[in-house]
Amino acid sequence: MARLDLQRPVVVTGGAGAIGSVLVRELLAKGAEVRVLDNFSSGRADHLPGGGHAAHLSVHRVDIRHQPEVARAVRGAGSVFHLAANPDIRLGTEEPSLDLEHGTVGTFHVLEAARRAEVPFVAFSSSSVVYGLPDTFPTPEDYGPLIPQSLYGASKLASEALLGAYAHTYGLATTIYRFANIIGPTMTHGVIFDFFEKLRADPARLEVLGDGRQSKSWLRTEDCVSAMLVAAEKGRGPVDVYNLGTDDQVSVKEIAEKVVAARGGTARIEYTGGHQGWAGDIPVQLLDIARIRGLGWAPRWNSREAVDRTITELAARSA
Amino acid sequence: MARLDLQRPVVVTGGAGAIGSVLVRELLAKGAEVRVLDNFSSGRADHLPGGGHAAHLSVHRVDIRHQPEVARAVRGAGSVFHLAANPDIRLGTEEPSLDLEHGTVGTFHVLEAARRAEVPFVAFSSSSVVYGLPDTFPTPEDYGPLIPQSLYGASKLASEALLGAYAHTYGLATTIYRFANIIGPTMTHGVIFDFFEKLRADPARLEVLGDGRQSKSWLRTEDCVSAMLVAAEKGRGPVDVYNLGTDDQVSVKEIAEKVVAARGGTARIEYTGGHQGWAGDIPVQLLDIARIRGLGWAPRWNSREAVDRTITELAARSA
Repeated sequence: MARLDLQRPVVVTGGAGAIGSVLVRELLAKGAEVRVLDNFSSGRADHLPGGGHAAHLSVHRVDIRHQPEVARAVRGAGSVFHLAANPDIRLGTEEPSLDLEHGTVGTFHVLEAARRAEVPFVAFSSSSVVYGLPDTFPTPEDYGPLIPQSLYGASKLASEALLGAYAHTYGLATTIYRFANIIGPTMTHGVIFDFFEKLRADPARLEVLGDGRQSKSWLRTEDCVSAMLVAAEKGRGPVDVYNLGTDDQVSVKEIAEKVVAARGGTARIEYTGGHQGWAGDIPVQLLDIARIRGLGWAPRWNSREAVDRTITELAARSA
Repeated sequence: MARLDLQRPVVVTGGAGAIGSVLVRELLAKGAEVRVLDNFSSGRADHLPGGGHAAHLSVHRVDIRHQPEVARAVRGAGSVFHLAANPDIRLGTEEPSLDLEHGTVGTFHVLEAARRAEVPFVAFSSSSVVYGLPDTFPTPEDYGPLIPQSLYGASKLASEALLGAYAHTYGLATTIYRFANIIGPTMTHGVIFDFFEKLRADPARLEVLGDGRQSKSWLRTEDCVSAMLVAAEKGRGPVDVYNLGTDDQVSVKEIAEKVVAARGGTARIEYTGGHQGWAGDIPVQLLDIARIRGLGWAPRWNSREAVDRTITELAARSA
């Protein structure tokens, strides 16, 4: 099956986002011509490289909900990395149509654009949240049943289902990444980012949602992107599904304590209590990454190292 | 958790359809007040009971794609059976937005209407096609991975995911039915129906898509509806998933030969060849029905009996 083709333009939706922008830099470094599609709701222009890359990088302000805009931007491309989505699980709980429109319908528009433009390869950033509350750890890719706990998770599973349908009905080659918690200096949401924001607003007190015992696997954006590229190059499709994560976990309590320490160690940590941080939170997460390791990839940093590195970066920025 | 409540109005979307209309009759027989929502694209008014039931049955011509119409019809109900969808897998291949709009978005509208109207229980007609091409037979409900082969299948899995999200985020109780091939006298599509239609058009020749060795499990509409009601009454939710089928299979070849025999035995059967009948066809299907049997339900007719009975009925009608 067709795979990632660096000789033809590569589209990255959500390309100005926390993960997308790192992927874009890596693709440019490999000599690819890259088209970024982003609505800049959470993506940021200053995440993208300027100057020397101008000839190989084009940036399109596109709302993924509008099929014609997506179709125009995809035409002539050889591959699509589809990362655009609402990035925040909790926003979807407040506004239930958000993940349907930006997630599921957005993915449909990308796939339909690829089909019509005869783009042979589409890769998609799904999430470990498709596993819902699994009872098997580490959780393998063939785990079932898949019962998402959030509208965000529902849109990820719905999007995966659309990739499967397009692959088998129209002959597209597809790769699906199920991400652990991806962290790094470009992130604009997530628990570590939130802790720094909260301490900026009130340096004396850090509120932690839940009991702090939520324990998850954390992967650096650089590692995430290197795994994405390995899978996109070596997959055999029609539909390849890969967990992307690390083999260890770090608790939210440990992260809270480390962030407080990095900010001077004076803030009081207060837990709201309860097993879940919020409705739809997945309190325990650990992915089986044997499949992506089987392609020769390994994470450069484990969860603890990834957390420490990210806290150091954010602390330096907020100092 | 809340379950089916026959003391308050019961909404049946797709209630004029092949399965919905049988469910509506059964609910009326149990004394429930029933509201049918249907766009009458494949549903038929003459499937619904008239006369004596008028006081307990209201019929609403509603397009599931229009949120306000759905919301109006759901208000004040105690339970929803959501069956409305594009019923034909192959139509979705020709028009890729069909299953997204009538399936996934339609389900979202039903769930959102239920949430806003505080309807505590929603049951949904999913399908065995969510299993894609499984390698385990009979296939249990916790089988993974779930990689649908068609846009119809993608919309079923997307809808299941939305039910999971609404159940866990907003406290709805939900039941998900994964149907085998449901057959009976009210059906307006599917292979048995199609064979009769083809022979009506050309009595000398019956074209069979694929090599005829596709082998599936067939469940009568009456059995399907009795299982739906048992699961809706006895489930413990938030999300109950039940396979509904039989323990045996009948091949498409056997069905073709039986239909030809029922029509006088003179037609020549021609196979188009290939493992699948069409892109997205699931050639082998057998569901593990231990879970629904565990609630005390059993099919009255096995697959062979269900096929024979249905052929006899359709032959009598076409004679």
